[in-house]
Amino acid sequence: MPDERRLSINQICVLPQWSLAQAVAGLARHGVPAISVWREKLNEIGVAEARRLIEEHGLAVSGLCFAGLISSPDRAAAAAALDDVRRALDEAAAIGAPCLVFLSGGVDPAEKDLAAARARVLEGLARLVPHARGAGVAVAIEPLHPMSCATRSVLTTLKLANDWCDALRAEDAVGIAVDTYVTWWDPELAAQVARAGPRIRAFHVSDWLLDTQDLRLDRGMPGDGVIDIPRIRRLVEAAGYAGHIEVEIMSARNWWKRDPDEVVRTIKERYATAV
Amino acid sequence: MPDERRLSINQICVLPQWSLAQAVAGLARHGVPAISVWREKLNEIGVAEARRLIEEHGLAVSGLCFAGLISSPDRAAAAAALDDVRRALDEAAAIGAPCLVFLSGGVDPAEKDLAAARARVLEGLARLVPHARGAGVAVAIEPLHPMSCATRSVLTTLKLANDWCDALRAEDAVGIAVDTYVTWWDPELAAQVARAGPRIRAFHVSDWLLDTQDLRLDRGMPGDGVIDIPRIRRLVEAAGYAGHIEVEIMSARNWWKRDPDEVVRTIKERYATAV
Repeated sequence: MPDERRLSINQICVLPQWSLAQAVAGLARHGVPAISVWREKLNEIGVAEARRLIEEHGLAVSGLCFAGLISSPDRAAAAAALDDVRRALDEAAAIGAPCLVFLSGGVDPAEKDLAAARARVLEGLARLVPHARGAGVAVAIEPLHPMSCATRSVLTTLKLANDWCDALRAEDAVGIAVDTYVTWWDPELAAQVARAGPRIRAFHVSDWLLDTQDLRLDRGMPGDGVIDIPRIRRLVEAAGYAGHIEVEIMSARNWWKRDPDEVVRTIKERYATAV
Repeated sequence: MPDERRLSINQICVLPQWSLAQAVAGLARHGVPAISVWREKLNEIGVAEARRLIEEHGLAVSGLCFAGLISSPDRAAAAAALDDVRRALDEAAAIGAPCLVFLSGGVDPAEKDLAAARARVLEGLARLVPHARGAGVAVAIEPLHPMSCATRSVLTTLKLANDWCDALRAEDAVGIAVDTYVTWWDPELAAQVARAGPRIRAFHVSDWLLDTQDLRLDRGMPGDGVIDIPRIRRLVEAAGYAGHIEVEIMSARNWWKRDPDEVVRTIKERYATAV
């Protein structure tokens, strides 16, 4: 069982049920020490009020989710997306989040050129480095599951994330978010987690359900699926990561329909038994 | 545009609409030179009748789909699955199929041990080599998309398929099936296709739809999605593969509901413009 003080709950677990104010108060009530903030909820109340609430309840912030989607071949669209990432970095700094979860963006259906899309994302990341340094917030690039490649992330493997970090040479400003759900299938997982080492800025956990019915919103509670989550946690720890362990479950058919207090209680139980 | 003589249509494209007898007659009527046979349809009429029909209509057979699913930790279940693969190899030989498409099988939900499952599949493949040699049929191991890892294939990447082939040292008996749909997202695709070289025994094409709604049965017609299929075809050809190009589309919400003659006509058109 991991240390209780390392638990963070991503706001997405109770996204439809709770506002950010309710989530902060709810997690504090259940003794959860940290939250990862979802940006659309943050923008409902603004960073000043969010910061006040988080401090008032004594929560730590493990991250801000998410910004990115900078893969477009349209220059104006890509520039606007980069500006949005810069805004998100400032928001992260304002609420005390050490990292911003970064999703690359998908494939342009007219261009159909994965290599070009990847090159543009890497180039965009390089341009974000100064702003990340200025904000004191790490860009945590997150490889998503390959089933998200078309729409959300041409960054599909930890190996590619490591390759990009090698190319960027900006370890202080760009790191990696490791997520059990999107990486568990990868034969290179152990090697690439070890290679990532101090680049690991965030660790997200959820489970893969045998009867998965949606490509994005059907994640499972730890213990309900087939992923050996403790094994991946030990790999991440062996690589040197000692930060928050963030439970991140988007579940349209199950957990989003439940009493949010039950969701938080269940996460705490499963954190103790299945993480 | 690839040579028309290399077109093969996998029976799965019209699985609910046509029996094997209807599919063989239908493809011949449309001037399609080859078929890949789906095993459940083959078993409805038996190999002798299937062979007679295929010869009568002058079709080539590009493969038999599929057998495998040998990853279980239950010894009796795994032994029964291996025996079934041997039967499938004999069936493939009987209908003149040069290869049997092999799917590894998924993860045992109680065991949750991917490494152990992979080791068992590799060991099972080694045990199948003599039977494949005797039948004169190659086992074409097919990495599936990582979203199928839990239920159907712990073999998730071409790199792992190549690693297994290295370990087996049985190039005459075990090769690789490359499928655009399950590999297009892979940053290592070009390198691993080149590495596979003469191991490539089958090449399957279909497209990834932007609005994919099912993890298995929502494949797109070439040209309707985001995959640069011609690029992957050229990679496979550069690796030395000159065999059939097999269109394999399982589409519960679209193509399975259409007139099968329309499906075949559309495949022929798209083969000329989008493959």
